[in-house]
Amino acid sequence: MSMQTFTAHPIGVIETPWQTIAECPRNGRQPNPAPLCSVRVFPDYVEGLRSIEGFSHLILLYWLDQAKPAELVFTPPFDPQPRGLFATRGPRRPNPIGLSVVAFDGLDGPDCLQVRYLDCLNGTPLLDIKPYLPSTDCEAAATMGWLAPHATPRR
Amino acid sequence: MSMQTFTAHPIGVIETPWQTIAECPRNGRQPNPAPLCSVRVFPDYVEGLRSIEGFSHLILLYWLDQAKPAELVFTPPFDPQPRGLFATRGPRRPNPIGLSVVAFDGLDGPDCLQVRYLDCLNGTPLLDIKPYLPSTDCEAAATMGWLAPHATPRR
Repeated sequence: MSMQTFTAHPIGVIETPWQTIAECPRNGRQPNPAPLCSVRVFPDYVEGLRSIEGFSHLILLYWLDQAKPAELVFTPPFDPQPRGLFATRGPRRPNPIGLSVVAFDGLDGPDCLQVRYLDCLNGTPLLDIKPYLPSTDCEAAATMGWLAPHATPRR
Repeated sequence: MSMQTFTAHPIGVIETPWQTIAECPRNGRQPNPAPLCSVRVFPDYVEGLRSIEGFSHLILLYWLDQAKPAELVFTPPFDPQPRGLFATRGPRRPNPIGLSVVAFDGLDGPDCLQVRYLDCLNGTPLLDIKPYLPSTDCEAAATMGWLAPHATPRR
């Protein structure tokens, strides 16, 4: 296997109501209502937010810096079978990169995005912000394999 | 700004028909038909694929190792206005992590996934595989801001 590595660095920090892993919801659509969270972009990157206003949803990538080491096979809390990590959205991944599709409720100052549907810890380092494009990111009829009976119902 | 860094490492490699950046499509839904691509997972991580068979779509994250340095504001080829990087899906990002929602057409051997809708270079290092969950990942009515007139029509 490859010994190559890549260096990622935070471009901002995510503020959520959850201070411990135990408090984090199972996913960002579970809390009802979903609390407003803040995404603070560091000054060096604020210029990159230009033209972001018109998007209703964003994809956030962040580094799950408090996640325990990767576990390739594990038994989810809500399922009796051991499952491969790549068939789950669990946080203990070889590269602990979290991904959330969030509702973008607008800017609060030039460096702060207000979003809903996050599930990560307060203080999680932000890696990337991408505009959500239904033309390439939406697959309404996708099948969910073993997770189908456990999915969070849409509201 | 934070000086903290995180080390990512490849868990596999992506095989596509595109050998140069000039050959890569604008997005993975542009080629018609979309070619079948292969995602080879390194032996150390194959166990993590257990239970992946039932998902029709996956989210792939990969490191755009051939992308030029980040450019926070740039003028896209198909638009006259300069746009902030985070309002685009361009590859020149502070953390060059690519994301594609792909159709999963099944395993070809225990370590190789066959997928469609990739747009990255052949040989791109794979970082993560996540199951696509319409319950949290699909936002059919999302608005696309400045990109709306330029979106790839759904087929």
